[in-house]
Formats: sequence, structure tokens, C-alpha cells
Amino acid sequence: MNYSKENLWQIEEVGFDSRYLGKTESIMALGNGYLGSRSATEERYTNERRDTFIAGTFNKFDENEVSELPNIPDVWWMDFIINGENFSLEKGKVANYSKRLNLKTGELIREFEWATGEIKLQFTFRRFVSKARRHYLSSYVEIKNLTSQSMAIQIRSGVDGQVTNSGSQHFNEGQKGLVDGEFMQMMPQTMESQIDFVFTVTHKLQVENLKERIEMGRRQIFMNYFFDLPANESAEIEKRMSIYTSIDNDLSIHEVEAMRQVAISEMKEVAELSFEQLLEESANEWAKIWAKHPILIESESFEDQLAIHFAKYHLHIMTPAHDERMNIGAKGLSGEGYKGHTFWDTEIFMLPYFNFTHPEIAKSLVTYRYLGLDGAHKKAEENGYEGAQYPWEAANPADGEVTPVWGAADIVTGQSTKIWSGFIEQHITSDVAFGVKQYIDVTGDQEFAEGKAYEILFDTAKFWGSRLEYNIEKDRYEINDVIGPDEYKEHVNNNAYTNYTAHWNVRYALNLAKELKETNPELFEKLNQKLALDRVLEELAEKVEKILLPQPTEEGIIPQDDSYLGKKILDLAKYKKMDGVDGLFHDYNLEQVNDMQITKQADVLLLLYLFEELFAHELKLKNFDYYEPKTTHDSSLSLSTHAILAADLGKLEESYEFFKRARAIDMGAYMKSSDDGIHAASLGGIWQMTVFGYGGVRMINGQLRIEPHLPRAWSHLTYGFDYQGESITVTVTKDRVELSKEDNGRAITFLSNGQQYSLQNTLHLS
Amino acid sequence: MNYSKENLWQIEEVGFDSRYLGKTESIMALGNGYLGSRSATEERYTNERRDTFIAGTFNKFDENEVSELPNIPDVWWMDFIINGENFSLEKGKVANYSKRLNLKTGELIREFEWATGEIKLQFTFRRFVSKARRHYLSSYVEIKNLTSQSMAIQIRSGVDGQVTNSGSQHFNEGQKGLVDGEFMQMMPQTMESQIDFVFTVTHKLQVENLKERIEMGRRQIFMNYFFDLPANESAEIEKRMSIYTSIDNDLSIHEVEAMRQVAISEMKEVAELSFEQLLEESANEWAKIWAKHPILIESESFEDQLAIHFAKYHLHIMTPAHDERMNIGAKGLSGEGYKGHTFWDTEIFMLPYFNFTHPEIAKSLVTYRYLGLDGAHKKAEENGYEGAQYPWEAANPADGEVTPVWGAADIVTGQSTKIWSGFIEQHITSDVAFGVKQYIDVTGDQEFAEGKAYEILFDTAKFWGSRLEYNIEKDRYEINDVIGPDEYKEHVNNNAYTNYTAHWNVRYALNLAKELKETNPELFEKLNQKLALDRVLEELAEKVEKILLPQPTEEGIIPQDDSYLGKKILDLAKYKKMDGVDGLFHDYNLEQVNDMQITKQADVLLLLYLFEELFAHELKLKNFDYYEPKTTHDSSLSLSTHAILAADLGKLEESYEFFKRARAIDMGAYMKSSDDGIHAASLGGIWQMTVFGYGGVRMINGQLRIEPHLPRAWSHLTYGFDYQGESITVTVTKDRVELSKEDNGRAITFLSNGQQYSLQNTLHLS
Repeated sequence: MNYSKENLWQIEEVGFDSRYLGKTESIMALGNGYLGSRSATEERYTNERRDTFIAGTFNKFDENEVSELPNIPDVWWMDFIINGENFSLEKGKVANYSKRLNLKTGELIREFEWATGEIKLQFTFRRFVSKARRHYLSSYVEIKNLTSQSMAIQIRSGVDGQVTNSGSQHFNEGQKGLVDGEFMQMMPQTMESQIDFVFTVTHKLQVENLKERIEMGRRQIFMNYFFDLPANESAEIEKRMSIYTSIDNDLSIHEVEAMRQVAISEMKEVAELSFEQLLEESANEWAKIWAKHPILIESESFEDQLAIHFAKYHLHIMTPAHDERMNIGAKGLSGEGYKGHTFWDTEIFMLPYFNFTHPEIAKSLVTYRYLGLDGAHKKAEENGYEGAQYPWEAANPADGEVTPVWGAADIVTGQSTKIWSGFIEQHITSDVAFGVKQYIDVTGDQEFAEGKAYEILFDTAKFWGSRLEYNIEKDRYEINDVIGPDEYKEHVNNNAYTNYTAHWNVRYALNLAKELKETNPELFEKLNQKLALDRVLEELAEKVEKILLPQPTEEGIIPQDDSYLGKKILDLAKYKKMDGVDGLFHDYNLEQVNDMQITKQADVLLLLYLFEELFAHELKLKNFDYYEPKTTHDSSLSLSTHAILAADLGKLEESYEFFKRARAIDMGAYMKSSDDGIHAASLGGIWQMTVFGYGGVRMINGQLRIEPHLPRAWSHLTYGFDYQGESITVTVTKDRVELSKEDNGRAITFLSNGQQYSLQNTLHLS
Repeated sequence: MNYSKENLWQIEEVGFDSRYLGKTESIMALGNGYLGSRSATEERYTNERRDTFIAGTFNKFDENEVSELPNIPDVWWMDFIINGENFSLEKGKVANYSKRLNLKTGELIREFEWATGEIKLQFTFRRFVSKARRHYLSSYVEIKNLTSQSMAIQIRSGVDGQVTNSGSQHFNEGQKGLVDGEFMQMMPQTMESQIDFVFTVTHKLQVENLKERIEMGRRQIFMNYFFDLPANESAEIEKRMSIYTSIDNDLSIHEVEAMRQVAISEMKEVAELSFEQLLEESANEWAKIWAKHPILIESESFEDQLAIHFAKYHLHIMTPAHDERMNIGAKGLSGEGYKGHTFWDTEIFMLPYFNFTHPEIAKSLVTYRYLGLDGAHKKAEENGYEGAQYPWEAANPADGEVTPVWGAADIVTGQSTKIWSGFIEQHITSDVAFGVKQYIDVTGDQEFAEGKAYEILFDTAKFWGSRLEYNIEKDRYEINDVIGPDEYKEHVNNNAYTNYTAHWNVRYALNLAKELKETNPELFEKLNQKLALDRVLEELAEKVEKILLPQPTEEGIIPQDDSYLGKKILDLAKYKKMDGVDGLFHDYNLEQVNDMQITKQADVLLLLYLFEELFAHELKLKNFDYYEPKTTHDSSLSLSTHAILAADLGKLEESYEFFKRARAIDMGAYMKSSDDGIHAASLGGIWQMTVFGYGGVRMINGQLRIEPHLPRAWSHLTYGFDYQGESITVTVTKDRVELSKEDNGRAITFLSNGQQYSLQNTLHLS
């Protein structure tokens, strides 16, 4: 990838190498939260991954698979046949190749010269997914004949429904046809969830003596265009597309025929607008996002600033802000990885960005968890518990658990490995509670708190109450047979992260109950009726003091779980140097890794970061130094946590090394990293490292904290955030910190280095 | 394609051109009747069609689709990564490229040098589908380093279940795993028909310092091999594969676990045999086929002899001779075209070859129609008729009609065109009767006649009895609203081919009944009980004389249907010159073509060929001259009929022009002709043109006829056939015809130019 300090809004690939197709498809993905699309090229390559998704349109291929976001029929595809020869960049000579994404406007541009035999052409491709019209997509191609001879051009372009999710086909073929002689339509339906889709495609060509012919193949409808391109002349082709579905919440009627009419009306409506105008309309919507709390970094490394633009761009294209029945997938809408499912990644890694900068989007994300209570009850019941046990992986909110049961091959046995996360990675429930609590603390959204958040907080505590196991011998409550954040350790007892967060969840519910009984007894009684709180809280009160909270050893190390510290230690240097994330598993299987002090990602350290108030500085330092060398960072959720914790601990230079590695997860040179999609949590992590890590912002126990500290490479940082309805801007240089907000008569209070401040307009911290 | 008179058993492509991938995949397809596979390359290309089929394993994707042969997981695929670069022939320089099929042994060979950057390698690929072990496939690769530097080689090879039928996925993912550390297995099941498949793959590598790693992707299991290939050295990789299914009739147990054991036992059993030995074992089975009635042509054009080898090779790899529940698809097992369905192509075009050369295979094919009586009853009932109405397209025998309802786009309306054949292309029923009658006449298989054939012949006549429409005004029986062989004419009345063949079917049944009542009253009574023959025959007897048989006009032209001769005439010269078969439809839609005297394929002329005894020579000539210029030959069933009829009519040079065009349907230069699969009927046609056309053999009303006549280009023709248990060889030169058979005391009688002959040992016709 090529990045330039001349353009901090641009992700660019210079020179074509088909091995990077997967990477550029992901990191240059387009979208608007409603739909997301990998930036696969118009022409096809064998190692491409041609995916487009519409948020929330989950479908289950068969009984043995789990619901996933279906890869919808492809609208970007265009074949170019020049003098009878199929155009492909694997053939002939390619010069001045550039594929680049404008993060500011959401426009993807690809241009190059291509020569083979007598053919020499200049191609320019431009496309965008409209941020102004969620259903609308546009593509533009200019072909210039660079020779002194006319060339015969054939273009095939339409909708191709032969694509699948790695072989699983979620759609029936559906009707297709040409309307009014110009609008191709295809109307497939998902097989199990029965969601209707309407694809509409039309073309505008600026060429002389055009011949055209409609064609239909199996699951395909497309136009064939034939024309001669005279010497030194150019042809322009515009492709306009839209996609509607029967679950769209901006449609009042979801009948297929009605949707077809809506789509055609829209196409007719935009017919008078040029590609440029439609792009501008979309870019104007992007401008509103960029205007909100821009982050300015002055760094020795310009990629730091670029990374912030990159992260925010992706956080917005992946997030279905328009519909609270949907949440963010672990790969956003940029790949088949994790099937579009939502994990704890949302609450711990992406939600903070939205809490602090787009509270209305954050509200939609936490509302999804409220809608997910039914699914969480279902899961709890299936597992013999009560209350709300959130699914490790979530699709439609009411579905409950959708984690697949079987994963990759075990290199020793040659058999598929069972994925236990759906059964025993239980910290997700306290993560959701934590996320909801952060949301109400940061936004001060009392309506959501009373209407939804408290219920979630009680219901999750109720789950933990039923989940705790009494150890009669030791007279304590344990949480055994779990997976903590470190997924290399399956079936462990008393994972510190799990136990501490469960304890927090229970303790918080008890405090909340006490408070509500005094301040809002009516609400408490309502929730009591619904959740049997009187009984539940009594039980919780009995148990809470006896929940095992793993205590530090003599050396000050909090054991990750009951058995971790007794396991043998492997030198990980070899694996830490490897590209990719599963190098370790080329030598060991999961069972073997389970028996060593190897940690996939921040586990104890995540606890120390999220619940900093519970642990002393010295203890954090010791644990950081103990666990980090044993951590492979094989999860993209690991590095940003380490960067922030290191910054908190004053290890700023070490922190910045983690920062650089963390922002390289998707943007870096390793060509395979993003094939399955971008790493949503890592992108949230980039924002967190900046605003939480160096900006020093944190929401702790309902109290805002601001303690900026820049790494040596940074000379300046400006960031902003929303806090309880106020908009705050912070400027940090080596020697001063300036905070400002509109002087509207209201003040906000915050802590900084143990001191309480009140910000009404402008304030300097020394 | 490159063909050489030096090797009349070889189909070869010299030089790589990805546009010919589809063609070579089809015409160099491998198979053994149990399974058929397109010869897609090991490495992948975007425009490849990577299909392998197991005969009879039909599955229906959903309610809106029809049963089709599923494209099974791909076992041929291998990726080669050389010094980190993906191998593809679209990149770098390719020299001495040859892809060739040995028709005699069924071995496919591909070899070439490939150079890019520092890399220069010689690749040799060999593979076969065993004719000796129906479940077994073998692939061999040699890679030679042509440079003086070592190269890092990575090979990925296994089973890939991500393939689909143009987007429709028929399989669930199934279990997969590595058994005994060496056998990869994958066990998917078809979704609707619930047929279990067991794929087993193992590799043998002859390389130093091999590293290997098992990997599983979604619907994939494969090995990764890593090794260094020293300067000027070679590496050999053998891939051994087998496929079993739960409908295999050579297995007594169809439990998946049992099939897995059978597969592994077989792999272990063949472990001691080399690639060469396994190939030889298979070639020995092929040798038995080639030994049966070899055809020898001495022609000015060596491609004539090659075409015979080509046709017989494909006729055998496409025909599921092992299982009478299965029949031949219109594209054999070589492509997704026509979904593996069986048409009248079998009876009219392929069955004659088997009747006359492999009666045991012919028996299996006609037995399939006997098993299809249930399906035919179902179809008749659905359409309000009685008796056996055979499906236009057939899959599993009991399924009945499986013709899809919607086809390609109408260029005028832009909507899908309704396919009427499944409803009204009714001549299939008399075609099946005709085929069965030919089978019993040629083979003299009395047991089949009494056990199955007579029942089919009565039951089809019974259908026609119910189908005939009485025209009270004209006091005659008509067959209205049909499609005849010319599928450009939909909803016509009294298509000559349909009416004449239906009349034959009815008349034959009446005669047969009369005969049986005398010779085998017991059998007649049995059939009477089953089919209510007394009533049916009485009705048929009343109707038969009044069935409308379209009579010649004053000009001697038999009207193709009631309206044909009144339609306007279009000069077809432009379309006859076009590549491909649908040129006409780029200018006109079906409705427009319906209104013109344009015929897709032999219709009246087919009638004149098959029922030659009903029509005078002069009338045939007139009709030939009238209809041929109006025929686009847009069906591959057309040219061979014209070639034979022209030969019959003494137009030998014109006939030979048709012969050459007919053999070029798959073997010719047009690159797109065979993308969807080879043309099974056209291959049967090649044999018919030779043995029926120039060899002059015909079975007419139970009487054998032999009247050879060679075109000018041919100086010699030797052919042979089986006739009622005797094996006859015929040698034809310009001036003499010699017939011979084993002198076993039995004589056969035949007609030639109106004279009756008796052949006991050797005989010369002047």
C-alpha cells in the first residue's frame, strides 16, 4: 500500500499485484451502513472475494449452518472485451496503476494504462455507495483509445446472482426482466429468512453507433454493449444501481412490486443528476461526519493522522446506524469473516467511539442489545440459567446464540475443532452490561437508562446469579469451565476477567436497585414485576461478597485463571515475528497451546484497563510486564488495549510501538491480513488509542477523566467528544492542554490527575 | 484446436488461450459413465467452468427450479505458488503449450514451459478417470526447475466444495477430516434428494525435505505442501481420488461410515500400483470398447476418422451403462447445459449406436424408459390424458416432467421466455416408442420385448388415443397446439412429424395386439389387465384411420404444420454464416420467428428419414430442397439428419458437406460451441452418418437394410455391428461391398436395393 503525507485522506495501491486483491477489496471497501461492499474490481480475478452485504438480512443456509449475512448478487461486475480479447490485468502490460479510496468523499478511483498486442487503452473507474441515498450505488468508466486505430469494444454489465458465501447460496433465483427498455431488475429472495430483494440497474453510455442486447443467464441479467472506439477517443459508461429489501425501515410497503416501483421512481428521479452531482450529494453527507469532532495529529509519522481518517471512515460505513434491529459485524460489512455477526467487539471496542462522538448511533447500538433480551433469555434457558445470557455471536436480535460449532482443522488429529465460545465464552454478558452502562454515563441518556438500560443491567446480573457455582469447601462462588478473552484457554476455571466483570455486573445491579428504590420506586417496581427482582436481588446480595475475585500472587500477578500460572512457558519470539495470526497453530494444536502460558490477546490486561480504579499502578505494571511477553496478539483486539494500558502506565514509547502495530493491522504491508474483511475492533481501537490512550479520556464509575499524555513522536493532538449533551474540544501539545466548549451556561466536571475540574468555556491543564 | 493425421486418437490444443477454456474442458472431458468431468485445469481461471457430475445424483435446489445433476465438489484443483507467486498461464510467458486427450486410453495430458521473472519451469500434468474402477480418479504432476537456482514451491491441493451449478448450491457442507494422517475425506449430502457423497483424496510426493500442513476452509479440505525444488531438478506429485455415493449400485451398504471404509480400503489396495499401472488397467478397459466394431475410414480428410473416435469416446464416457435407473444427458456428463436431463436425443440419436454395437448398454437405456412409466403416467394424468406421456426432459425415471418453465430473455420485451416444450412438445412419447421398437428389432431381445417393450408400446399408444382431438367438421383426429421438432414453432396444429409418429405408434400397437392375441394370448391378457387394452384398442381402432396425416401440397411439399406454408419467408443467408446458434434471436424474438417459414432443425425431413418407407423418393427430394434452405440448423440435432437424408437421396457431395459441418459442432474452430458441454446427439449423429448414412444400414419395419454409398472423399469404409446376436463386418470401397460374419451355421437376411440377401459367412454386393 502507498500512503502519502500529501494526502491524509487517501488509501492507495500503486501497481497491480493480484495477491493484494483481497486486501484492497477490504481496506478500500465502500458503504453507508445500510450496505457495504468490498471494492472488488469490475473485471474478475480468480482470487478475488466479491462480496456485498445489506446489514441485517441474515439467512441460514441449512440446519447445520448458522445465520449469516448473505453475499448479495453482484452489481459492480463489468466485462470488457477489446477486439475479441478479454480484458484482465494479469495479461499484457499495465502502467501507472493506481487504485485509491478517498476517505473524505467515499469515492473509489482506479486508473491505469493497459496494453496488449495492438491494444492500448487508458481506463478510469470511479464508484461510490451513496451516503445521501442509502439504496443507491454509482459506477463510472472512461476508456480512452491510446492508439491510432479504432478498437471494437464489447461491454457486458448487469447483475450477477451466481456469487455465494464461499459456496453457500442464500438466494433463490427470483424473477428478472427489463423494464421500460432500460431498467434491468432482479428480484431474488433469501431461502430461509424470505427477505425479498430488488436490484435495479441501468446504464448511460456516451458513445457513437451503440448496439445493445439484453441477455439473461442463470441468476444473471445483463446488457451487452457493442461499439467502436475511434483512435485517440474516449467512451464513457455510467452504471447506476439500487438495492431495496423487504426489511427496509424506510419503506412503508414491502411488496416486491411496490419496491420495484420505488426503485424505478428513484432511478428516474436521479436521471437528471450527473455522476458528479450524485457523488457531491453523497460527499456532503460525509462532510457532516468529518465536521463532527475532527482529530488532528501532528506526528513524526503522517500515517497516524491517516489512520484516524481510515478508522472513522470504516466505523461509519460498517455501522447500520439507520436501524436498531442491527448491529456491527466483527468484519463490518467488508467480508464473509465471522458471518456478519456481532461480538463483544461492539461494546468494548467500537461503542466507545460512538458514545463519545455520535450518541444517536450509540443509542441504536445499545437498543439492539435491548431487543436482544429475548435471544439472551433463550440462550440462558437453553443452558439452564435464568436472566439474560447474551450470545457470544449475534445476528438478528431475537435469534440468540449463532456461534458456529465447528472451526478450522486440528493439525494433529486432522479433524475440525469444536468452537466452544458459543457455549462457554460467557464474559460477553458482562461486556454488554458494561457497554450499556458506559453509554448512559457518557451520554446521560436518562430515558434510555430508565426505559432499557436498567432492565439490561438487572437481567444480566440475574443471569450471573444463576451462573455462579458455590464451592462448599471454600465457601465461595466460582465461575468454572469458561473461556476468557484469551481464547487459547478453553474450559478454565475462574478467569479473572470473567469473574471481576461478573462481580461488577452483580454489584452494580445491587447498587442500582438500592438507588432506584429511593429515587424511582415506580420504575423499580415495574422491573421487579418483570424480572422478579426482589428474589433475585436477595440472592445476589447473599452471593456477591463471596464471588471469587482472583487475587495477586506474592509476585503481584493476577492469575489469568486457576491453572494458567502453573503451565509451562514457551518462548514466543518466533511466532511474534510471523506474518498472519495463526503461525503458532502450524506447530501446536489448541490442546497443546491450552497447556502453556500463551495468551492470544489482552485478558488480565484488559481488565486492568477497563476497571483501572480497582487496581494499583504498581500491580498493573507488574502484570503488564508479566503477560505481554506471553501474548501473541493473534487477535486484532489485543494491540490497542496494550497501547492504552502502556500509555496509562507511563510507558509512552512502548505504547506508541503498539499504536503503530495496531494501525498496521489493516493498513500495513501484510497482504493477507484483511482478506476476510477489515478488523472492526481494531478500528475502534485506533480511535480509543488516540482519544483514550493519548487524549487520556476515560469514563470511570460515572466520572469523566481527562489526562492527556503524548508519545514523543506526537507534537500536537486535537480531539473532541460529546459528553452528556455538551461538545468538548481538547488540544494537547507537549506542554499544555486546552479544553473548550461552548459557553452555554452549563459546566461539566471531570477529573484529571486526581483533581476535579469544571469546564464552562475554556480551561488549561498544566 | 489442432488435429493431426499422425495421430487419429488425439484431440489437441496447441498454445494457451483462455477463451478456449470452456471448449477444451468439454471436448476433452473425462469420464466412465459413472462420473464425468470437464477437463478444467488444475489452476483456476475466471472463465473456466469447473464441473464434475455423478450420473443420476439429481437434486432440486428449490421449488422454483427443476432437478438437475449437481456439480460435485472439485477434486482436480491444485494451486501452485512459486517463490510466493501464484502460477497462472495468464501471466508470464508460456511456451510449447499442449493440452491433449488420448481418446484411446482416456488420458489427458497438459504440458508447457512457464517463465516469469526469475522463474522458469516445465510443467507436465496427466490425469484419468478410471474405466476399470468407476469411483477412482488419478492426477499426476511433474514440475521441473529449468533454472540454475532453487525455487520455493507451495502446493495447495484437496477437495473444494465451494463450486456450484452457476450459483445454485446442491450440497450441505458435510463432515470433513483427515484419516490415518493421509486420507482427506469430505462427506457432503445433496440438500433435497439427500444423497450422501464420500470424497477421498490422498497424495504421493517424490520430493526432499517436504513440509506439509492440513487446512480446512469453508467447504474445503486441502493439504499445503512446501518444498524447495533444486536447480534443474524435478518434483513429482500424484493425487489419488475417489468418489462414492449412497445410490451406488455396486455397494451393498450405503451408510456414510461404511462408504468411508470402502473408499479407504480401495485407496490402500491401489497404493502399491503406480500411476502408470492404474492408467494401464483403465486403458485395458477402453481397449475392449475399441475392439468392438472398429470403424475404419479412408478419406481425403483425416478428421473424418478422428471424428469417429471422438464420437465413440464421448458416447461411452457420457453413458451410465452401469445403472438402468439412469440415462444419457443432452450434454452427457460434460456440462451444466440441460441440467443432465434426458431428451428424445437418446432414442433418435444415441440409442442407435448402442443398439447396433453394445446391445447390453442399449438395454439399460430402454429399461430406463420402462422404469419411467410411472413418471409418464404422472405427466399424462397432470395433463388430463391417460396412458404413458413421456416427459420432454427426464431426470430420475419416476419424476415425470422436469423441463424448466422459464428460459432466456426475449429481446423485445426484456422478459424471460416461457419454455413450452415440457407442456406441448409431445412427439417425445412416440420417439420413446420408436426407440424401444428399434431396440427389439435390432437386438431380437424377446425377453425385453415381452417383459417391457410391448407394455411401453401399448401404453404410449394409449396416451395418443386420449390425446387425439376429434374435428367434427372434418371428421378427423387432429393433434393441435404442439411443438414439433422445429422448436421455433410453438402452439402449432398437426405438426407432420408428431402426427405421423403418433399414427405409427397407434397403428403398431393395434398390429401388435393382433399378433400377440394369436402368438402369446397369455401375455396379451396380462397387459390387458394392466392397461385395459380391450377398451383402449377398440377406441384406437376406431380412431386410427381418421388421424390426420398431413398430405403433400400440389408442389409435393408436406406441410410442417397447418400454418407453416402460409407464413412469410426470410432469407437466412446472414444467420447461416454466423458463429453460434442464436444469431437470429439477436434480431427477432420467438414470436416473430414463429410467424416466418424458419425451421430450427430437421422436422419434416426427420420424418422422411426415420419413416422412409412411407414416402416416395421424388417427394423426399422436393421436401429436402424446400425445407433445407429454411432451416437454420440451430440445433445440433439437425445436420446429421440432413447428411443421412441427402446420402439416401443420392446427394452424396451435399451430404458430405453436412457431414463435415456436423462433425465440427464440437470439434470445430468456433470457440464457444461447447461451453455448456458437448452435444450428445451430434456425437450419435457422427456414428449414424457413417454407418447409416454411408454404410447404408437401416432397420425398417423389422427388416435390416444395407445399402452403402460413399462420398467422393472417402475411398474406404469398414464398419461393424451386432444384429440379433450376430456380429457383422462390412467393408465398402468405391467398387465393392464385402459383408462377413462368423460362420456359425446361422444366417441373417437383409435387403439391399430392393433385393433380399442371406449372409452366412461372407458376401459381396456389387
